[in-house]
Amino acid sequence: MGRVAVIGAGCTPVGEFYEKSLRDLAVEAALKAMDSAGVSKVDFLYVGSAFSQLVQGQGNLGALVADGLALQGVEAVAVEASDASGALAFHEACRAVASGEANLALTVAVDKLSDVTGSELSKALMAGVEQDYIAFTGVTLRGLAAILHRLYLEKYGVTHGEVASLPVVSHTHASTNPYAQYRNKVTVEQVLNSPVVAEPLRLLEVSSPADGAAALLLCPLEEAKKYTDKPVEVAAVASASGNFVLTEAEDLLSFKAVQLAAGKAYRKAGVAPEKIDFVEIHDSADVVGLISLEDLGLAGRGEAAKLAARGDLYLQGRLPTNTMGGVKARGNPGGATSLYQLVEVFWQLRGEAGRNQLPKAEVGLAQSLGGLYSFATVTILRRV
Amino acid sequence: MGRVAVIGAGCTPVGEFYEKSLRDLAVEAALKAMDSAGVSKVDFLYVGSAFSQLVQGQGNLGALVADGLALQGVEAVAVEASDASGALAFHEACRAVASGEANLALTVAVDKLSDVTGSELSKALMAGVEQDYIAFTGVTLRGLAAILHRLYLEKYGVTHGEVASLPVVSHTHASTNPYAQYRNKVTVEQVLNSPVVAEPLRLLEVSSPADGAAALLLCPLEEAKKYTDKPVEVAAVASASGNFVLTEAEDLLSFKAVQLAAGKAYRKAGVAPEKIDFVEIHDSADVVGLISLEDLGLAGRGEAAKLAARGDLYLQGRLPTNTMGGVKARGNPGGATSLYQLVEVFWQLRGEAGRNQLPKAEVGLAQSLGGLYSFATVTILRRV
Repeated sequence: MGRVAVIGAGCTPVGEFYEKSLRDLAVEAALKAMDSAGVSKVDFLYVGSAFSQLVQGQGNLGALVADGLALQGVEAVAVEASDASGALAFHEACRAVASGEANLALTVAVDKLSDVTGSELSKALMAGVEQDYIAFTGVTLRGLAAILHRLYLEKYGVTHGEVASLPVVSHTHASTNPYAQYRNKVTVEQVLNSPVVAEPLRLLEVSSPADGAAALLLCPLEEAKKYTDKPVEVAAVASASGNFVLTEAEDLLSFKAVQLAAGKAYRKAGVAPEKIDFVEIHDSADVVGLISLEDLGLAGRGEAAKLAARGDLYLQGRLPTNTMGGVKARGNPGGATSLYQLVEVFWQLRGEAGRNQLPKAEVGLAQSLGGLYSFATVTILRRV
Repeated sequence: MGRVAVIGAGCTPVGEFYEKSLRDLAVEAALKAMDSAGVSKVDFLYVGSAFSQLVQGQGNLGALVADGLALQGVEAVAVEASDASGALAFHEACRAVASGEANLALTVAVDKLSDVTGSELSKALMAGVEQDYIAFTGVTLRGLAAILHRLYLEKYGVTHGEVASLPVVSHTHASTNPYAQYRNKVTVEQVLNSPVVAEPLRLLEVSSPADGAAALLLCPLEEAKKYTDKPVEVAAVASASGNFVLTEAEDLLSFKAVQLAAGKAYRKAGVAPEKIDFVEIHDSADVVGLISLEDLGLAGRGEAAKLAARGDLYLQGRLPTNTMGGVKARGNPGGATSLYQLVEVFWQLRGEAGRNQLPKAEVGLAQSLGGLYSFATVTILRRV
């Protein structure tokens, strides 16, 4: 497989944009990414979106975004894997470049959840979960996360305050990220005293639906210097599916999809977990993020909460995590969330993360989940 | 780009299957394709579906189908491009094999439209069309096709009976295809006397929503003989987007997306249009299929209807078209339709098309459309 570089990136702020359309957001992010590399035309376009069909009634997003960018004739592919859509679109773009077919591949991911509320929103958010046996019961993503939360506390003898330390980290990092939706710092006490959304889960422990778009531009590594002095290499892309009927999992506190995807990614990149300088994890709920850290091999079972409580996950800590605010505090625009992660990793590796810049950023990993945790992507980027 | 072979194929019949789920259909087709090549495990899975989100409320189809096939851990990617979803998923599978990443890539496409009726169905069917300016008006796909139909008759001085010759061909071919939904032969008179669905378009001129799944198995060409004595080579895959806001097209009777995709496909395959032995075209409405033939360079402007009326498109004609019944009569299970086309081309090239077998089938082309005609795929397969 040919080596692939990321040469440009861009995103919109995350928020609620009533004056902008899905297309507006996608085009804004795409043009930023293209401008950042001085490129005005690409030959492949990959679009990731999880919810455009159920929220805007809009499918065929490859053609929509191509048209919005005046890129008619481009190969345009829309990819969907719930919140992992953007990362998976990026993986496909990598393969198009690696196959020798694509010279310049643009990945754009977008979702705009503020267009609906109530039952329409609930239905959309559950689309990634198995419908016939799980969604059918009326359970929500937060209800499912609450089950994991309770189990996690009981099995590992961890305190709620330790688990709730993760959103404290994410909000702290978001506070200095101009693109983040929630830039307020919070304390463990504030998290624990926030309203219950699904016992024992509190409001400040879960992400909330938002609007946003992110974009990354790819080319063969050997061409990258034509566009930028600071290309970033795609060291590995890997995804895996796990139990789709979540109740069939052997161990609810271990995400098989993450383990399998991470194993493949470390192997392909030739990198051991301890060589990862920083990570972006899918903290759609704090406990989901913590289990992810454990399945990535970056913390022992039940120990991720301890790392969070000890301060190891801050920018200056041993394992900087969610360096721009994570899913929780940067904000969660559905299928775009996982591409925001990659934009953030790219910026860290290029030294362009502003006030959130890490002193050491050679190898970064981003992990995303779809369908609560039935599907996972792992992407490793590194400085050239 | 490495050379890619198709080594197995399978499909369910097209129809209305109230006793089967979306997953059941996908798994049935996938197992047939895998069995046909003696394969029980793959490393990549591509799933195409246009309507599962709006019809079943189900996204994250990569994980769903992987789980249904007990292929946990597999890379699983769901691709969407309206009716062209299945073909586009196939294109992505080709790239995964060509990049050297995938050793065995399975493409499955599925849709099950019988689960909804009325406004729910109408909304789903329009998802591929631009929402803010086109779908917003309340127009339907058939209403849009009717505009093209009227223009086609007026501009080219063609008779309605000549246009209506295409469904006669498609039904004739479907009559001997055991997988086809509509196996009744029809005459031009019957087409012209069938109920009006959108003046001047008649019921027997348009396809109707259905259920079905199709699957194809791919591997590197140099490995193909391990699995089958009769591999088929993927000579070219290409797609293109055109005007997403359909009214912005310079010429409504010319599908830019098809022209652009076909141009790329012929170039990549090193094959001129006149070397194509048979074609599968997207006759969602007869006039749409005829314009497609013209944009593929297989008929002059306004002449495709004449070819149909003259009998050139029958199995024994000069340009055998829709050899298994086409979108119209084999049936139209949404995003799976374009993968049925490729299964059919594969069978023709292998000499496995039963009573519909062509005497000469060296190179076959399949063309599909998404969002009425804002997006197009063209795939060329050939005997090795």
